[in-house]
Amino acid sequence: MNIIIINGPNLNLLGKRETAIYGQGNFEDYFKLLKVKYPNIQLEYYQSNVEGEIVNKLHEVGFTYDGIVLNAAAYTHTSIAIADAVKAISTHVVEVHISNVFSREDFRHVSMMGPAVKGSISGFGLDSYRLAIESFLKS
Amino acid sequence: MNIIIINGPNLNLLGKRETAIYGQGNFEDYFKLLKVKYPNIQLEYYQSNVEGEIVNKLHEVGFTYDGIVLNAAAYTHTSIAIADAVKAISTHVVEVHISNVFSREDFRHVSMMGPAVKGSISGFGLDSYRLAIESFLKS
Amino acid sequence: MNIIIINGPNLNLLGKRETAIYGQGNFEDYFKLLKVKYPNIQLEYYQSNVEGEIVNKLHEVGFTYDGIVLNAAAYTHTSIAIADAVKAISTHVVEVHISNVFSREDFRHVSMMGPAVKGSISGFGLDSYRLAIESFLKS
Amino acid sequence: MNIIIINGPNLNLLGKRETAIYGQGNFEDYFKLLKVKYPNIQLEYYQSNVEGEIVNKLHEVGFTYDGIVLNAAAYTHTSIAIADAVKAISTHVVEVHISNVFSREDFRHVSMMGPAVKGSISGFGLDSYRLAIESFLKS
Amino acid sequence: MNIIIINGPNLNLLGKRETAIYGQGNFEDYFKLLKVKYPNIQLEYYQSNVEGEIVNKLHEVGFTYDGIVLNAAAYTHTSIAIADAVKAISTHVVEVHISNVFSREDFRHVSMMGPAVKGSISGFGLDSYRLAIESFLKS
Amino acid sequence: MNIIIINGPNLNLLGKRETAIYGQGNFEDYFKLLKVKYPNIQLEYYQSNVEGEIVNKLHEVGFTYDGIVLNAAAYTHTSIAIADAVKAISTHVVEVHISNVFSREDFRHVSMMGPAVKGSISGFGLDSYRLAIESFLKS
Amino acid sequence: MNIIIINGPNLNLLGKRETAIYGQGNFEDYFKLLKVKYPNIQLEYYQSNVEGEIVNKLHEVGFTYDGIVLNAAAYTHTSIAIADAVKAISTHVVEVHISNVFSREDFRHVSMMGPAVKGSISGFGLDSYRLAIESFLKS
Amino acid sequence: MNIIIINGPNLNLLGKRETAIYGQGNFEDYFKLLKVKYPNIQLEYYQSNVEGEIVNKLHEVGFTYDGIVLNAAAYTHTSIAIADAVKAISTHVVEVHISNVFSREDFRHVSMMGPAVKGSISGFGLDSYRLAIESFLKS
Amino acid sequence: MNIIIINGPNLNLLGKRETAIYGQGNFEDYFKLLKVKYPNIQLEYYQSNVEGEIVNKLHEVGFTYDGIVLNAAAYTHTSIAIADAVKAISTHVVEVHISNVFSREDFRHVSMMGPAVKGSISGFGLDSYRLAIESFLKS
Amino acid sequence: MNIIIINGPNLNLLGKRETAIYGQGNFEDYFKLLKVKYPNIQLEYYQSNVEGEIVNKLHEVGFTYDGIVLNAAAYTHTSIAIADAVKAISTHVVEVHISNVFSREDFRHVSMMGPAVKGSISGFGLDSYRLAIESFLKS
Amino acid sequence: MNIIIINGPNLNLLGKRETAIYGQGNFEDYFKLLKVKYPNIQLEYYQSNVEGEIVNKLHEVGFTYDGIVLNAAAYTHTSIAIADAVKAISTHVVEVHISNVFSREDFRHVSMMGPAVKGSISGFGLDSYRLAIESFLKS
Amino acid sequence: MNIIIINGPNLNLLGKRETAIYGQGNFEDYFKLLKVKYPNIQLEYYQSNVEGEIVNKLHEVGFTYDGIVLNAAAYTHTSIAIADAVKAISTHVVEVHISNVFSREDFRHVSMMGPAVKGSISGFGLDSYRLAIESFLKS
Repeated sequence: MNIIIINGPNLNLLGKRETAIYGQGNFEDYFKLLKVKYPNIQLEYYQSNVEGEIVNKLHEVGFTYDGIVLNAAAYTHTSIAIADAVKAISTHVVEVHISNVFSREDFRHVSMMGPAVKGSISGFGLDSYRLAIESFLKS
Repeated sequence: MNIIIINGPNLNLLGKRETAIYGQGNFEDYFKLLKVKYPNIQLEYYQSNVEGEIVNKLHEVGFTYDGIVLNAAAYTHTSIAIADAVKAISTHVVEVHISNVFSREDFRHVSMMGPAVKGSISGFGLDSYRLAIESFLKS
Repeated sequence: MNIIIINGPNLNLLGKRETAIYGQGNFEDYFKLLKVKYPNIQLEYYQSNVEGEIVNKLHEVGFTYDGIVLNAAAYTHTSIAIADAVKAISTHVVEVHISNVFSREDFRHVSMMGPAVKGSISGFGLDSYRLAIESFLKS
Repeated sequence: MNIIIINGPNLNLLGKRETAIYGQGNFEDYFKLLKVKYPNIQLEYYQSNVEGEIVNKLHEVGFTYDGIVLNAAAYTHTSIAIADAVKAISTHVVEVHISNVFSREDFRHVSMMGPAVKGSISGFGLDSYRLAIESFLKS
Repeated sequence: MNIIIINGPNLNLLGKRETAIYGQGNFEDYFKLLKVKYPNIQLEYYQSNVEGEIVNKLHEVGFTYDGIVLNAAAYTHTSIAIADAVKAISTHVVEVHISNVFSREDFRHVSMMGPAVKGSISGFGLDSYRLAIESFLKS
Repeated sequence: MNIIIINGPNLNLLGKRETAIYGQGNFEDYFKLLKVKYPNIQLEYYQSNVEGEIVNKLHEVGFTYDGIVLNAAAYTHTSIAIADAVKAISTHVVEVHISNVFSREDFRHVSMMGPAVKGSISGFGLDSYRLAIESFLKS
Repeated sequence: MNIIIINGPNLNLLGKRETAIYGQGNFEDYFKLLKVKYPNIQLEYYQSNVEGEIVNKLHEVGFTYDGIVLNAAAYTHTSIAIADAVKAISTHVVEVHISNVFSREDFRHVSMMGPAVKGSISGFGLDSYRLAIESFLKS
Repeated sequence: MNIIIINGPNLNLLGKRETAIYGQGNFEDYFKLLKVKYPNIQLEYYQSNVEGEIVNKLHEVGFTYDGIVLNAAAYTHTSIAIADAVKAISTHVVEVHISNVFSREDFRHVSMMGPAVKGSISGFGLDSYRLAIESFLKS
Repeated sequence: MNIIIINGPNLNLLGKRETAIYGQGNFEDYFKLLKVKYPNIQLEYYQSNVEGEIVNKLHEVGFTYDGIVLNAAAYTHTSIAIADAVKAISTHVVEVHISNVFSREDFRHVSMMGPAVKGSISGFGLDSYRLAIESFLKS
Repeated sequence: MNIIIINGPNLNLLGKRETAIYGQGNFEDYFKLLKVKYPNIQLEYYQSNVEGEIVNKLHEVGFTYDGIVLNAAAYTHTSIAIADAVKAISTHVVEVHISNVFSREDFRHVSMMGPAVKGSISGFGLDSYRLAIESFLKS
Repeated sequence: MNIIIINGPNLNLLGKRETAIYGQGNFEDYFKLLKVKYPNIQLEYYQSNVEGEIVNKLHEVGFTYDGIVLNAAAYTHTSIAIADAVKAISTHVVEVHISNVFSREDFRHVSMMGPAVKGSISGFGLDSYRLAIESFLKS
Repeated sequence: MNIIIINGPNLNLLGKRETAIYGQGNFEDYFKLLKVKYPNIQLEYYQSNVEGEIVNKLHEVGFTYDGIVLNAAAYTHTSIAIADAVKAISTHVVEVHISNVFSREDFRHVSMMGPAVKGSISGFGLDSYRLAIESFLKS
């Protein structure tokens, strides 16, 4: 089983950026822990700050992988292009957010991803990613 | 560890109601499976169609339980009273939805619960409840 | 043939309340006249001021009765829970209003019931109920 | 007793047009059945696709007839002119719709007729017309 | 000097219609008084309930007359077609209203005519027409 | 003279709930002080988390009591049912809020109670209730 | 007969200010012509850039003068205070605008004066003032 | 193959009206050129300023012609009646505009025709009509 | 203890102005009664129709007085300047309204004062002022 | 004559993606047919999922090519950057859409391209591209 | 070279008012420093809390001074009168704000001054004034 | 001291593009002049049309440079990603615009950058950049 985590803009600064909201851990360390926890899943990680590159990556993996965990970050709220890509591919996409987007600015309450993804998980800090992976496993 | 699942209006009809959206299983059967899966958690289940009774139940359990899984259903989108109750208590509440609310009617895109809960999980069918319980466990 | 009339909040005060809008007759007297007029229909009457109790009643009668005449009153404009209940059951529901809601306050122009019911009748005073019953008879 | 049914734009295509929404019967056949059903009422029928001609007809009949059954169709949602005509005349007007306008496009949820008519009936298919006629009879 | 007064829908009922708002005089009588008052002006009067016929009339007179006094009535608030006609012709058009449209329903506060006409006069009862004619005279 | 104080949802948690906003006193203690301060008034207290039960209570007391002090809490902003009840009864109702609702979330700026009550008092902490009682006394 | 013309902010710059919109004449010269044209009317003129001073002047003249011609200029679109003053006095007020406000910026399409004045005249350049005076004369 | 071009209000003034926007050619001359260019197509032309007559014409041709080229002009933005007619008939309709409606007033950005037509072409001047005819030919 | 009552625009006309809404008493008489009722409070009264003068007065008294009772009248709904002044000073300000603003025009439902004042009292007629003074006394 | 077709995000998946909406042909095959059909035009094709790369390409070709056919896909509705680029260059741009955007989601009804392009063509499937090329040819 | 700084309401309290937002320096001291820094510019300072007096001052200086630095404070967001004055005069006006208005309340995001001024500078504390003066100097 | 100027989309065309709005100088020439004017500042320049590359550059310089001058151009109004990057870094960012964005299209009045930057300067043509640099110097 192969699953890819795709992170959007500014998530490469995790641990350096607004730590009151996003926590102090960086994503690379967390990702290592995830790989240890799920030895039987082939876990991959991709990050880009460029909207179109996220579209490219979704096209690349979206017909062969078993699952995609997508934190589109800022693009969540504005990108029809990424939402269209999610709808265009056949692999299921689960939307993930670290913070509770509904307790932040108004413009973060809108999700272009919403109608396109299979499900969404938000507000659990980095643990949101683990729950997303769990969602691809048999219950 | 004791966790309660609180279901809002019309969820007692699960399995009978709009099965294209909500699936064919009823909640009681699913709940039995959950209890088998998590033998070490004291799992409880409560359902009411009355907004104020859900407020009452939150008050009753909200200072002593370890976790609350709340599917406020229709009240998710309109009830300030339930959201205020969630903020008033000390136990963490995780919001759960069976369907992907963002791919349904516009009025279901608004969540009064949003800013009050710890996190939210939606779109995974009944499996959303399992993921919510997972969120209370150590990762 | 059995038909139930379900009245929402404050309709128990009919004849006492804002008689310029709602008329001077109380509903109990009118209901007796209806029973006389339709001796072959088993007519029932239920009133509650509690949103969730109306949901409960709809669940209770909604799979066996031949028709439901619903005046959700104030809840017409706000209750997703009742609308969801109407959609969840199999008996047809006809929406009824005593006054012409469109010539009153703006917030009464919105009907959450609208998309869920079979049809709706408003503005004919208490006679709206008779027309609703007529709608269940063969034309 | 004389009552006129006035139908607005495109209703002349009934039975040919979007039959999933409007049904398969044409209005002329239905009108003949109505005349049979109500032998003591002098029933008339008028249809026009022109907004101003409907205004003209309302002026013509609106001070002498006993009742007007109006399905303004598309003009329901935009015509202040017809609504003004309804208010300008002395005969009571009952608004009728074949389909449940609230389960269709957003722009059909607005009714300019609403505040002007005596009452309104919608969603019962062609049977809406019969109920409108019933509303003019003694209960 | 030739000036035409063009009246829109329902103004043919003046004196019969909502006399609390529009007054008790009918327009024909008032028009005779105007002709007496302005013997040197060739005054004409046209009324139609059909939006497109008002467009036709504007085309017909709009390149040769010295002035047009237009009370588009209900079409004031919705008709882009009449506004386009006003802009398409070369004769100046003065907009007139009998009542103060701003103290009535919200939908009467919007004027499609506004940006197209030379000036507008409202709220003076039938006297608004006289003031409009005055506006075409040398001050 | 008999006056009843009716408190809405979550106000039973006063002193336990968000004390930064609502203060640290519980309502029962405060109510005892009020009774001492106004020995000549028959003061009563009712609290419910259920919207419809507040409607019921208003019906029960609303034709015989001398005054009603209503803090509808969360229902202030959404309940047409309670507002309709306030309009349906004959006893004057004074709206009360502990906090300054206008310096809180946007959805708390809307008051359905507003047009129905005699007057409203907000922002004085528990002292708002005393001022409401004062309003029923001769100045 | 005494009539006062009250001009609002920036109208003292007439003839110096945005002459493409407001024309090249200054108001003082125009006012002299008006006095010549209406020798039997006691015409007065007042201008202020201060909202509250316009309110003061309306109070001062509003119970004894025969007519007020008000061009509130920028305050037309924002001043509830002036509109309240217009409603508070007994003399009729006619609203006047030099330019056609509907062919300018959106924020000039709103008139707070609208519902308070007797009538309004706009778009005729300085001639709007003459027409306003005409409106106070017998037709 | 027979195709009809239907033009809406004010397009009869083409060449006389706002030539900066609509160009200087009149439609009759252009239509002759089109007939020369497409000798094998039976081209017809109809123009009306009356909304309902356009509905009538659509009904008349809409079940037998091979194609309809519709420039509803001002009615594009307001007419549900014409849009309903387009949906009611079986012949494909192509929407055409001479100017680029999106670089004009806001109210021209809304198209009621949009969801009803097969496709739309705008901004190419009179050449938009030729492209619409091309769309009916084999590519 | 010194408290000042500051009244905004048009309140100097109290007793002369729209007496159906504001009552028939003038403020000066009422103020004398207040002084008699509270002999131990140094009560002062200020009224201005000029927004900026109210700002000036707030600055003047806002660092030394014990309380300010402010009825900003029309400026309540539009004045950021007064609201900023209220926030800038150290004395507590209580907002007062004579009428129930929520049962009047929509634009009176917005209060710029709301988030800046300590509390607000409205709808009790002139008695609102007494209650505001009470709010500054020990309960 | 050289013309370039620029396709935006996800159009590289044509034939694989939501074929019910976009058809089953891929663009490369269609492009070959176009080149055969127009042997005298130097046709080029560019696709990118990156908004800024489309801006780059427009800059590169926008001062020397004879025509640009642009299907900005998802960026149509959000990209001010591409619209600014279209305005910044001298070559005419024709906007193209495969599907009828007005019969899809609301957010696809807004076109940032609208005011910047020469004309637009939508709803004809891949044939929209041919019509765009036709628009650059002499009529 | 003569430049005037015009400050709007509440800026006279600088150093006393909400120092967390506006800083602790008062404007008079800062103004002295500016005069020292720019000995060759004739710098003047004016402050008023009255909207209309700011209009008066703009008229007085607006045809002879070389530059105006305007901090309209609260009036920035509501005053069409001041914006009209800025447009009416010939001297360039530069808008200045001490705080970053975009990180404060929503109603401070709207600037009526915006379209009227030459440029605007905000967020640099008192240093915004220095930058505004710099903007009038040769670069 | 090192400061970087970051320019967003289409600013590479400065001097070629819409010169009526943006002026005729290109940025490279202007930048040379800036370097001459500020010999003690290490000035750098970066331009990209790709939103995500601007994010990348902000990450790269945002923890070590002394100042960032950002003209995000079209992305100013839509990019949450760039705004998030501005908030994520530690170097202060000053927002710059060449034209007065408030006197242009509505969609340019919204600034996503607003709440994230230290200050903003707009409307001074290329001189806006000089003023931004001045803001980083001691006053």
